[in-house]
Amino acid sequence: LAFLTLTTDFGTKDGFVGTMRGVIWKICPQVQIADISHEIGPQNVLEGAIALWRAYPFFPDGTVHVAVVDPGVGTERRAIAARLGAQYFVAPDNGLLTPMIEDAEAKGQPVEFVNLTNPKYWLPNVSHTFHGRDIFSPVGAWLANGTALSELGPTITDVVRRPLPKPEKTATGYHAQITVVDAFGNCTTNLPAAVAQGVKKISFTLKGRQVDDLVTSYGHRSPGDIVALVDSESFVEIAVVNGSAANALGVKVGDPVEVTVEF
Amino acid sequence: LAFLTLTTDFGTKDGFVGTMRGVIWKICPQVQIADISHEIGPQNVLEGAIALWRAYPFFPDGTVHVAVVDPGVGTERRAIAARLGAQYFVAPDNGLLTPMIEDAEAKGQPVEFVNLTNPKYWLPNVSHTFHGRDIFSPVGAWLANGTALSELGPTITDVVRRPLPKPEKTATGYHAQITVVDAFGNCTTNLPAAVAQGVKKISFTLKGRQVDDLVTSYGHRSPGDIVALVDSESFVEIAVVNGSAANALGVKVGDPVEVTVEF
Amino acid sequence: LAFLTLTTDFGTKDGFVGTMRGVIWKICPQVQIADISHEIGPQNVLEGAIALWRAYPFFPDGTVHVAVVDPGVGTERRAIAARLGAQYFVAPDNGLLTPMIEDAEAKGQPVEFVNLTNPKYWLPNVSHTFHGRDIFSPVGAWLANGTALSELGPTITDVVRRPLPKPEKTATGYHAQITVVDAFGNCTTNLPAAVAQGVKKISFTLKGRQVDDLVTSYGHRSPGDIVALVDSESFVEIAVVNGSAANALGVKVGDPVEVTVEF
Repeated sequence: LAFLTLTTDFGTKDGFVGTMRGVIWKICPQVQIADISHEIGPQNVLEGAIALWRAYPFFPDGTVHVAVVDPGVGTERRAIAARLGAQYFVAPDNGLLTPMIEDAEAKGQPVEFVNLTNPKYWLPNVSHTFHGRDIFSPVGAWLANGTALSELGPTITDVVRRPLPKPEKTATGYHAQITVVDAFGNCTTNLPAAVAQGVKKISFTLKGRQVDDLVTSYGHRSPGDIVALVDSESFVEIAVVNGSAANALGVKVGDPVEVTVEF
Repeated sequence: LAFLTLTTDFGTKDGFVGTMRGVIWKICPQVQIADISHEIGPQNVLEGAIALWRAYPFFPDGTVHVAVVDPGVGTERRAIAARLGAQYFVAPDNGLLTPMIEDAEAKGQPVEFVNLTNPKYWLPNVSHTFHGRDIFSPVGAWLANGTALSELGPTITDVVRRPLPKPEKTATGYHAQITVVDAFGNCTTNLPAAVAQGVKKISFTLKGRQVDDLVTSYGHRSPGDIVALVDSESFVEIAVVNGSAANALGVKVGDPVEVTVEF
Repeated sequence: LAFLTLTTDFGTKDGFVGTMRGVIWKICPQVQIADISHEIGPQNVLEGAIALWRAYPFFPDGTVHVAVVDPGVGTERRAIAARLGAQYFVAPDNGLLTPMIEDAEAKGQPVEFVNLTNPKYWLPNVSHTFHGRDIFSPVGAWLANGTALSELGPTITDVVRRPLPKPEKTATGYHAQITVVDAFGNCTTNLPAAVAQGVKKISFTLKGRQVDDLVTSYGHRSPGDIVALVDSESFVEIAVVNGSAANALGVKVGDPVEVTVEF
């Protein structure tokens, strides 16, 4: 059995994602395919990178992740495949894989890239506007079939990187920012929850609103309360109990969060 | 082959559901997974219960249904697994399984519950905010693998129930209500269509609008007509032919429907 | 292994599509199922036809395509199955399969239709409002299992056709129209890009706005530019680079596009 995931900004209305499954099945009929998201904002590479980053650690070794958020489709931007740790990735070379690369590097795991130049692993006819169908899906399916990375094109090392914003240390704590607003309206920051360990007091100011301390989970406060807590990837998240922090506070991705810490 | 379904209020934008598939595949690689809905209203346990209730009878014996609408995640609310008839269910203990329990009881089928206390069947690290990933998905996958219910934790009998509203008998008929507004704007009631059998006349009043008789299907009246008919689960539904009754009449879930019957 | 696709106007909120998977698995447990789209506009047969038409060529031989956009459900409209080329189709007889039929005819491939009259291949109880679940899904699953078309009902030849609008030749070029507005806001026309081959100059007027020439892909112009290009199915498409032509110009499906050609 082989495993493959899809992360795109294609939406689900137009059949693009269904078409990719057809392409993949022709090459690797028995593969299990999961959709990570197809509602990444159009051309929003960073949003796509974060969505895949939160999901990929939970997949089996050998899973192939096909990610297509591709403002440069049809231009000279490269298409790449990567082995990062025990998993495989196929994407345009525009920074979409950066957080997964950083993870593998931080852990001292294998990091290999190839430039997808071998048309043997593409569809016979390649359009200028839908490489998700014509290049990324078939390459992903061949990888799921066990094709070696080296078959797909020459090794490269200079892939485009687009690191996620990191929190900055300030005199009284950190200058952080919102990285994800999820469907519930929960607002995740780029601040690792580990910074709160052993502190006497921690508070977060977002959109002029101060939130003190970290609660354990939503249900420990009353509906409507604004809380800070540790999200499921161990970052600090601002939420409204049984409500939407995004709506209540007007938060969007990129908004600053001032963090004050007392030791 | 094993079968598993997912019903959540997670949306499909953020990758939560894809992540759950990864978790499940690591434990039960060959399982077939169906999404029932991920667009249940946030924390709307009743809506989740109804969506799963309409779908589950059509699945093969042995299917595992993982349902996560979970306002109490991270609190002391229990997590449970159940055998109801020939199918399995995994959910927070908040009433989400009530209509399936009532079905099995009404049919005299097996009804068994366990409290999910055995961490052997969870992910090694359990977050406070995403038990869909950390507890419910792995437990569902182990059940799909054939793990016995009794392995997962001790038997319990006092699960939380949250029965669907039932229609009330009135002097001239029934006081019913809207239970589902679907994507077409069709409005299903909690009135079993069987009550219309053998009656001389039946009419429905909803939002000040009276609808007489039951038609066989949408196409038997003209586009734009408001009709009452028997829905696909044998309840009475109010619809607009080739249109949206929800929009035309401003109907939402919970709205009252007065039913007048003449014998 | 067997392959099956689903194209409907059911949405994904209400569990209808999940239910269809359950029905299919009971009959053909090992089938791979892809969603083409469930966001076809309610009762919009033409939109459903186009979505399936763009996707089906990329699926393996023997794939069964179940398509349900069915304003006539529960009336006397027929339900049909078809072999078109090397693939199978199941749908209401309302024109939904027309572009696939025309493709097969144009290529001289097999074209066979049967009227679905044999209840042996349906669910035991057939509702008046959800033939997607009760007739089309089980028939599709039986076809995926290898059941012969002739088992499903008698051969017919007079299926309903609803051809896509074709561009009209004018004195100076073509009168074309918009056939698809995708999730990016890209606007595809019914004009085959082949008409631009060898011309000295080509321009497109849409909503009072003139767009000259065809560019190779989005990334060859600046963000915000309105461009015409060849889409992934070799039709002319009007797009805004990294933006939405639909929003920028207020375009919707059916809008006229005047094409001027100089030789």
